[in-house]
Formats: sequence, C-alpha cells, structure tokens
Amino acid sequence: MSDEKATTTEAEPPRTRDREEAGGGTTLSLSRRRLLGTVGAAGAGGLALGASGGALALSQGRDPVTPLASVGTGRHTFHGTHQPGIVEPGQAHGHLAAFDLVPGAGRREAAALLRRWSAAAAALMAGEPVEGVAATGIADDAGPSSLTVTFGFGASFFDRTGLADQRPAALEPLPEFSADELDGRRSNGDLWVQVAADDGLVAFDALRVLQRETGRAARLRWQMTGFNRTPGATDRPRTARNLMGQVDGTNNPRPEDDDFDRHVFVPRGGDRRSPAWMEHGSYAVVRRIRMLLDEWDKQSLEQQERVIGRRKSDGAPLSGGDERTPLDLEKTDARGRLLVPFNAHARVSAPETSGGATMLRRPFSYHDGFLPDGAPDAGLLFVAWQADPQRGFVPVQRKLDRGDALSRFVRHEASALFAVPGGAPEGGYVGQPLLEG
Amino acid sequence: MSDEKATTTEAEPPRTRDREEAGGGTTLSLSRRRLLGTVGAAGAGGLALGASGGALALSQGRDPVTPLASVGTGRHTFHGTHQPGIVEPGQAHGHLAAFDLVPGAGRREAAALLRRWSAAAAALMAGEPVEGVAATGIADDAGPSSLTVTFGFGASFFDRTGLADQRPAALEPLPEFSADELDGRRSNGDLWVQVAADDGLVAFDALRVLQRETGRAARLRWQMTGFNRTPGATDRPRTARNLMGQVDGTNNPRPEDDDFDRHVFVPRGGDRRSPAWMEHGSYAVVRRIRMLLDEWDKQSLEQQERVIGRRKSDGAPLSGGDERTPLDLEKTDARGRLLVPFNAHARVSAPETSGGATMLRRPFSYHDGFLPDGAPDAGLLFVAWQADPQRGFVPVQRKLDRGDALSRFVRHEASALFAVPGGAPEGGYVGQPLLEG
Repeated sequence: MSDEKATTTEAEPPRTRDREEAGGGTTLSLSRRRLLGTVGAAGAGGLALGASGGALALSQGRDPVTPLASVGTGRHTFHGTHQPGIVEPGQAHGHLAAFDLVPGAGRREAAALLRRWSAAAAALMAGEPVEGVAATGIADDAGPSSLTVTFGFGASFFDRTGLADQRPAALEPLPEFSADELDGRRSNGDLWVQVAADDGLVAFDALRVLQRETGRAARLRWQMTGFNRTPGATDRPRTARNLMGQVDGTNNPRPEDDDFDRHVFVPRGGDRRSPAWMEHGSYAVVRRIRMLLDEWDKQSLEQQERVIGRRKSDGAPLSGGDERTPLDLEKTDARGRLLVPFNAHARVSAPETSGGATMLRRPFSYHDGFLPDGAPDAGLLFVAWQADPQRGFVPVQRKLDRGDALSRFVRHEASALFAVPGGAPEGGYVGQPLLEG
Repeated sequence: MSDEKATTTEAEPPRTRDREEAGGGTTLSLSRRRLLGTVGAAGAGGLALGASGGALALSQGRDPVTPLASVGTGRHTFHGTHQPGIVEPGQAHGHLAAFDLVPGAGRREAAALLRRWSAAAAALMAGEPVEGVAATGIADDAGPSSLTVTFGFGASFFDRTGLADQRPAALEPLPEFSADELDGRRSNGDLWVQVAADDGLVAFDALRVLQRETGRAARLRWQMTGFNRTPGATDRPRTARNLMGQVDGTNNPRPEDDDFDRHVFVPRGGDRRSPAWMEHGSYAVVRRIRMLLDEWDKQSLEQQERVIGRRKSDGAPLSGGDERTPLDLEKTDARGRLLVPFNAHARVSAPETSGGATMLRRPFSYHDGFLPDGAPDAGLLFVAWQADPQRGFVPVQRKLDRGDALSRFVRHEASALFAVPGGAPEGGYVGQPLLEG
C-alpha cells in the first residue's frame, strides 16, 4: 500500500499547554521520565499493533501505582498521501458528524474552514496545543490515543460553493433500497468529519474543538457516536464483533493486498469518475443500521448462524475451515442442503457473487439508549471506503437488497455519501486542490 | 478498609462458551498459551492498578501482530462484603439503568429477579457463560475487562413489594434544590443497575443480559451511558477530568483512609437510619448534570479557575501547592482578594465548610449528541456513595445551592437515590436479607 503516514508507538509525553505551564507552581507535570519504562512494540505488524493494541508497556515494578501511558501514546500523523482514519484499525471511540455551510457562506469561507480544521486536526493528532481556539483542557494529561480526524464533502457542498463542475461523478446519490427507512435529518450534509480515538475524552475534545472551529461558517447537521473494543480487551487482533455478536470484517481487503489501493483509493491524477483533485482520496458510505436485537436474540444459535452463513463463535464459514477460509458456496450436507444457505448474508455479500465489488468496512457499534418499547436503539455505524461506490457499496447493497436473510433483522435509518480527498501535505489543508484549484 | 473482594490482574483466558467449543472445527480458540507473556502487575497498589491500568503486558516479541490481553484480564469478584462498583476506580464505560416492577409483580418476583441478576452478574464478572439466557456472543473473545455490576432499591420498591416497614430512613427523598430542572421520566425507579467495564462491548453485553433477565418481572424505566478515560491513555493514575476540563475527584475519601468505611458504608448490624439488612451497604445518589459547555468555554482560563478555585492544568488550589494540598481558605493576594474566591466550587463543597460531610464521588462523563441549538448534550453522570445521604450529598448540595459559582454552568436534569445493600455471599443474592428476612 502507498500510505506514507507514520504510525508511532513510541512514548510521547501527554500534552501540556503552554499557558498552563506558565501557571507556575509545583505542577504534577508529566514528563518523559515517567514514561521511560514504556516499551515500543512496533514491528513488522506495527500498524495493526500500534492502533489496536497501543504500545504495550511493562511497569517493571518501579512505581506500581502509576500505570505507564500505553494506549495514550498511539499516534498517527495528519499529513500524508491519504487522510488518516481510513486504513488504521478502528479505534475504541468514534464520532461521525455532518455540518452544513450557513446561508451566505461559499467557497472562500469553506476554504478558510478547511484550513482551520486541518490545522486543528494536525495539532490534536500530535497531542499539541490547538491554535486559535480556547483549549478545552478535556484531553489534558492524555496522549493522542491514536486519534484520527478525517474530512469529506457531500454532494450538496458543490452547489453551495459554486463548484458544481468539480463534483465527482462517483458522488452521485446512492440508490434507494427496499430496507431503507431513512431519516433525512440524520442523512447527507455539506461537510463530514470523522473523529476516532482510543480514549473517550480525547475523542470528545477533538469533536468539540472542531465544532468550535466552524465559527460562523457552518452548523452541525447531525452527529453520531460509536465504539469498538478497547485495545487490550481481547487478544484477537483483527476480529471485531458487532452487537449481534457476529465476527464482522473478515473479508475486508487488507492494506498488504496487491489491489488494496485500487479498491480503496482514487488513483493519482483521478479517473473517469473522479476529478484530479480527488487523487489519493476515497469515498465514504455512512449508514446508521439499527439492529432489531430483540428479534435477533429470539433466534437459536443455529438460526443465527444460517442467517449469516458463518459460525458465531469464530466467524468460520458453515462450509468449514477457520475465519479466513473462503466460503465453499457449493458444499452441501448429507441431505443435500447447502451448508452456506442460499440467502445467507456471507454468501450474498461475497465478492464472488457481486462481480468482485469490494469495499473497506470500518464501522463503529452504537448504542443510544432504548426505544419506548424497551428495544435497544443500537446497531452499527457502518462506514465503508472505496475508490468508487459503484464498484463497492452499491452493487453489494443491491444484491443484499434482493435476498439477504439478515435484512429482516436490520433497518437502515440514515445514509450519506462523502468524497474524502487525499491527505494534505505539511503546510496545506484538506480540499485545497479543490478549493484553490 | 474492610472490602474483602479479590481483585486480580492475572492473566485470564477470555470467555469461551461451552456450546461454541462444542461447535468443533479449527476455532481460533483463546488459550492460556497465548497469554503466557502477560505479566501480572498487582502489588501494594494492586487495587488501583488493577482497575485503572489493567494488567500491563509485554509482548516479548513472540507474536508481534497479536497484542496480549491486558485491559481484558482485569477482574473483580461479585461476591463479598460489599457490592462491586463502589470502591474500584471508575471504568472506561458505564451504564446506569432503572427498572420498575410490572403491575402485579411483588416481593416473590423481585426475589427471583435479584437471584437471576446476581447469578448473571457473578458469571459476567468472572468472564464465564451466563446460565438461563441465550448468550449474546457480544463479549466473546474479550476478558471481563474489570466489569462490575451493582444493584440498588429505590424508595418506591418498598411499597410495591409490601416491605414499607423495611424502607431505610436514610432513603427519604432528596430535597429540592434551586438549580434542579428534573425530568421525572429519567429520575427514580424501583430497581437500579450500574454496569461498568473497561470495554464497551463487554459493558453493553452485561446491560443487555441483565435487561433480558428481567423477563416479565420488570421494565426498563431509564438508562444512561457514560465514559471515563481508557486505561493507559494517561499516566496520571488517580486524576479524572470532566468535560469542563477540570480535574475532578481530588477530595474523594480514599479506601486507605481510617474513616473511609464510616463515610461510605452502613456499619455491621445497620444503624439508626438503616435497618440491619443494609449492613455493609451504601446509598447511591445519581444525578444527570448537564454542563452548559457553550457558556463555559466562553470564560477565560482565569475566570474558569476562579469559578472552581483550582488551577485547570493540575487541580492545585489557587491558594498554592499541588493537587493534594489542602485549600487555604484565608489566603489573599497583594490586594487582599481571597485566592480561593468566596463562591468558588472547591470552597463551597469543601468538608471544612460542610460540617465534615463526605461522599465518594464515582462519576462518568456523558455525551448524548447535541441539542437543537448546537450545544452539546453532555456533562456528568454524577454517582456519589455514602453511608447516609444526610451526612454526604444533602448537606454539600444544600451548601452549593446557596452560592456556588459553578451553578451558572450546570443543570441537574435527573435525580435518583438508591439503597445499595451489602454484597452477596457465594450462593446468595443481593437483597436476600431484605427479601427473605
């Protein structure tokens, strides 16, 4: 893969703010000294380990009541070929938010906003003080905790800014699907921000700073909060589980795959469906998918497994093997019954049955309390990345729409599609080639 | 302190379910083998370290893409003198939920429910399969991640179950305060459950299992979700920050203090205000306190610090010293101005100014999106523990009510008070001395 951003798991002193240091007195300052015992654990698998496990640390018995920073030291860089928040393993806390430009704000205000946002994101991700807004203090003491901030543009952005001729063909509206019960107030938007970190206060702080940086240029349209496993809660490094208890993400393309970039990123110079300003960018499909857990939990284990086509315990196909074994779509049991049922989710969504359509799913679970009938308002904040939705989400979802056994148990409640430009170089900002092109 | 529960930070294999083991095949089973590199880090400060830092682990380079379970191995035991979830450092994820008995359900149904809940809680906290309900699978692969489950009874419980003569005097309704804007639908309740863990899926799973275990005996009344720092995100072990960016909890009593038990737990045999069935129990005051962050963030750092009476950077009193230095309530600057202002939150809430009133605050931050005006719907799920609210929360809050500079920036939106019995012995259940007394 061509991702050139550095991922460090080295010890970093948690942020301190100049003005606080200037406060004088005997502050309980956080120094490298107390972090000396931290052992960087990056290696061949450094990317995966860095973000999913943080820097593993050993206390070495010197100060048994002071846990050494480990999760906190995970750090990704904002500047690079691609934006952060796409290839890194999903963090424990995520916020998705859409903003609309206010009436009267156009290309110039949008450019200034993206410049402010990019500067703030770069500082936050490095664990440094943010210029230009009063610091909240919320993330003080903590390291950046693998924070990533990602920015995107919705289709409506291009009309608002007089840039309709630069709108990518690939950003055409998603088709309607029969299982959609979409809430327009929680869908779409001019601008999109994805914030994710392994610490909840760090993630909230970043969201809050970015909201405050909008100033009078844009207003929040919708915001959703999600979560994944905490680093270190499991020793299975790649496997995520969703709130149905299913292993989720097995068939994701992997950064080390030869065709990963082709599936996920717009090529250098753009392509037929993406203008040049989108080079090294990607498209994010965002769906709020509520799970009907009361219905789901009434199914027996065997019923659940036949809906999915995989074993619940470990994600292995019902046709045998382990999680990584390809589905055997033809294999039958002694009675001639397909082991992976005809309408099993894993079969219907398999690239082999969708013309090779591939996307990188990088979701968060969500839980927003309970509905009046007592059912959990919970499910998946589905975020999928691809070089072109017509070769990723759209054909897969069309196929699922025609006969996926899982569709009985989920409702798509919100939907959005965003063009996510390539990463900004040092000194630049996300979207600059579009906004100053 | 007399807490007799064990806290382990030793390596524990993440849970596996019998029925899944029986599924056969080449499961990616989680074994002690892969956890052998985990180093238990318990020591003199084992309690604090165990729950705030998990078991710190070193990969030792044997399998660099497989982070060894660390956070996941944190484990508290359900059975003991006191219930769990009171003295342990606050976990990264918390759920508070109240349930009401359904019409027709009385003492017998309540006893059966508490028996089911206690059995489920004990299994979940040990990372073992739960008997009696279909497992969700959500927490599979993960260790118990310092899960605690705590049960309490609201004042209305005693009428519903014909046990009005057993209602503690200490459970009298909290007085009204001038800053209250309480929502009755999110206040009070017959039964209370506090679930907390360092992993979000483990916490959700436990809440979901307990909800399902209610069967037809009780219905959810309200539920709130909160968070704290992820273990390892900071190397400051004791200090929490809230969403105002303030160091919060400095003056909490500590388990090693001589009078900790007297402040927090009902003594053996009960006392004048608590019947014998409450021995070793405590009272939980729960308040949903929204922070008016848009107003707060408009204040300068100096203004914020004078509202609180402490430095924002490190929590040190404005009268000098470090976070642990007692407030000097008389000290003035060169112009004769009190360094800790007259209405500063730290002054008004100090035990010295509240007749020694003391409570153990163990809150979670919350963030439930944004209000229509764009302000964060965020703040503190305040949970305070004391042997008698009349010697803890009530006098402190009365004093704050009369002149706390912070009150301009917060709204109390929900309130509840619960009697939390002592811990259950092995084979028993929480509340058994009340329900079978």
